[in-house]
Amino acid sequence: MTTAPVDVTYEEILYEVSDPIATITLNRPDRLNALTGRLLSELRHAIAAAEADERVVAMVITGAGRGFCAGADMQRLKNTADGSGHAFAEELESSPGDPEMGEDFQVTYGYLLAVRKPIIAAINGPCAGLGFSIAMLCDLRFVSENATFTTAFANRGLIAEHGLSWILPRLIGPSRALDLLWTGRKFDAQEADHLGIVNFLVPHDELLERAQDYVRTLAERSAPNSLRIMKQQVYKHLMTSLGPALSETNTLMAESLERDDFKEGVNSFLEKRAPQFARVGLPGDM
Amino acid sequence: MTTAPVDVTYEEILYEVSDPIATITLNRPDRLNALTGRLLSELRHAIAAAEADERVVAMVITGAGRGFCAGADMQRLKNTADGSGHAFAEELESSPGDPEMGEDFQVTYGYLLAVRKPIIAAINGPCAGLGFSIAMLCDLRFVSENATFTTAFANRGLIAEHGLSWILPRLIGPSRALDLLWTGRKFDAQEADHLGIVNFLVPHDELLERAQDYVRTLAERSAPNSLRIMKQQVYKHLMTSLGPALSETNTLMAESLERDDFKEGVNSFLEKRAPQFARVGLPGDM
Amino acid sequence: MTTAPVDVTYEEILYEVSDPIATITLNRPDRLNALTGRLLSELRHAIAAAEADERVVAMVITGAGRGFCAGADMQRLKNTADGSGHAFAEELESSPGDPEMGEDFQVTYGYLLAVRKPIIAAINGPCAGLGFSIAMLCDLRFVSENATFTTAFANRGLIAEHGLSWILPRLIGPSRALDLLWTGRKFDAQEADHLGIVNFLVPHDELLERAQDYVRTLAERSAPNSLRIMKQQVYKHLMTSLGPALSETNTLMAESLERDDFKEGVNSFLEKRAPQFARVGLPGDM
Repeated sequence: MTTAPVDVTYEEILYEVSDPIATITLNRPDRLNALTGRLLSELRHAIAAAEADERVVAMVITGAGRGFCAGADMQRLKNTADGSGHAFAEELESSPGDPEMGEDFQVTYGYLLAVRKPIIAAINGPCAGLGFSIAMLCDLRFVSENATFTTAFANRGLIAEHGLSWILPRLIGPSRALDLLWTGRKFDAQEADHLGIVNFLVPHDELLERAQDYVRTLAERSAPNSLRIMKQQVYKHLMTSLGPALSETNTLMAESLERDDFKEGVNSFLEKRAPQFARVGLPGDM
Repeated sequence: MTTAPVDVTYEEILYEVSDPIATITLNRPDRLNALTGRLLSELRHAIAAAEADERVVAMVITGAGRGFCAGADMQRLKNTADGSGHAFAEELESSPGDPEMGEDFQVTYGYLLAVRKPIIAAINGPCAGLGFSIAMLCDLRFVSENATFTTAFANRGLIAEHGLSWILPRLIGPSRALDLLWTGRKFDAQEADHLGIVNFLVPHDELLERAQDYVRTLAERSAPNSLRIMKQQVYKHLMTSLGPALSETNTLMAESLERDDFKEGVNSFLEKRAPQFARVGLPGDM
Repeated sequence: MTTAPVDVTYEEILYEVSDPIATITLNRPDRLNALTGRLLSELRHAIAAAEADERVVAMVITGAGRGFCAGADMQRLKNTADGSGHAFAEELESSPGDPEMGEDFQVTYGYLLAVRKPIIAAINGPCAGLGFSIAMLCDLRFVSENATFTTAFANRGLIAEHGLSWILPRLIGPSRALDLLWTGRKFDAQEADHLGIVNFLVPHDELLERAQDYVRTLAERSAPNSLRIMKQQVYKHLMTSLGPALSETNTLMAESLERDDFKEGVNSFLEKRAPQFARVGLPGDM
């Protein structure tokens, strides 16, 4: 059962809800928002909170200061390399994501793909290593013209971590993925766009506003339950043969034709007015 | 068993065969070719007819008037929303597609991917909703510079219908697919090309001619049995691991080396003349 | 067990190792490097040699003279068509590729994806038929502005041979793949880049140097064991659901944190110096 996360005070992120947007800001700007166990745990907790909050239609993840995320904190990695500590230990209680999506989405950052609302990365600067993996596991990417990217793992003797070997070839094909993984080279926002990992390349000063506007437009025009089911369809059907995918789709279609959202969608269209769709909160509310 | 479709008189499509092309025109121009049960049933029937006709090497689907297809007819959808009717009921007798492709291709519009000949969409204007799904399940898309696209489903409280959640992420990746599904935003032919759903972006006035020329060139240079087997390989191998795909390919290769088409392909190449390949009709003829 | 290949004298390829690069040149320039059984067998043998050689970080495959590879030798194909000979018979003893990758990578040219080092095609001119298949099964493609491509199979009455039906739709999507397979049309380097089969489009005179420089940079900055594991991850995880892919990744991550390469990667980064990583040779050496 998914339950609402308990109240906590965040130390390494900022969390703000302004209907219909939850904005989550990675907030260790003096370290380019390098990831600690605490930060990752807070991120997971905040995503669970936004998922359970009916006011939130979609969430935006961005970075404080001049970077998006430098990846795992190198000093902590060094401690791990020296055997003097675990990289990521702290864990707040939270379990975002739809458990009905099944086991595929319950290993480490797989939960991001099972969250029942859109997760949008607003990438404002350097995006590296584990920060890159998390950005690729977000559903969409708004990218500042100032952003830069690197996978970095091979340069530290590491591997394609945290789902990158699964998601990146599905975004840009195996060959371009291997180039980015193998070299760990730094590439800019324009090349990222050419390679296919950018949804919207935007002027730096407009980044957060554009990502938030996107959520406002979703809230005005699209049914939150449609967003929820479509996300589930897309990620599950990457792993499903055509026949079963079509059969599941037919069941979901039949269910959607019974929902009030469908009547409202058709009537608002014919009446040329904005629709009023149900919001998505905790599963019990649906 | 696949059998030749019985003769029928079409009311909502036009069907014309001019060797080597079958042209199918969605023909409710006053409704932007919005789909009815009748129209969908006629489309399926015509595709079966073209598949069984030896004169036809490939088929082109286009729209009459200024649009390609507006999607499901909204008035009928409204009746469905009101509980006063089924959206799609009429069904002519036809079963296009190769039954040997297996169950994956026998649910709703999955048959399009199992048809033993290329299906080319010539998209001449607005392409929306179910019309968009069908266009994406066509093998290739010739797109007029005037065309516009929208998935539209989320704006009506619906889901990614009729295979779109399966095919669209395989065409353009899951992230771009989610953007198009979630927003239901209208986008133009140039953006469609950038996103990767266009094979050939062409001037509006040349659209149908260019798609038909493509079929003529296929008929002149490529063996219809090669087209048939390659289509089967590509869609089946999207759902197959590398080893079994290579093994099946090796069997298909050995069979192709035994076929007269191969001798003709090699000899015509060495003799610098156009090849004369066997046509594809009903399975019993192969 | 993978074992070092025995010494042989190559007749139809050139093989040169210059730490960290193995350069393999298809060497039948008077026949546009058309493939014979002998040549394919030598290619496989040389790849096994490069894989086993600790000096080699990655290998580059290119063509002698003005072409990359014209595909299967047409005269030999004609003999096959006439029933007077097998196309590909000769086989030197060699078995490149990591057997632990499993059966998926042991059918015909599937071995290329299991080789424990990057294989880079440097495509210097016409690239056709089986030469096209092999180029697509290479991990990366450096492409001369003078290169041209054609699948050619359908024009000979043949099918999508040797893995092309599996790899090409994963590189560029099923629709663009079908267009290239069906028409067999010739397309240039610029269109290849637009379609997504080019990693680096480079001036003709710089082609080999650029591909070799890429390998030098890999050797300077990336751990060979990271390259090896990342290649395995990417290709295996194309055929793996998210959950198992993440679980395997977590195991590989834990192993990488124990390796000296990781300590060296972190320390060299913090000390702002070039890393010294272990090389990859025969499995017994790892």
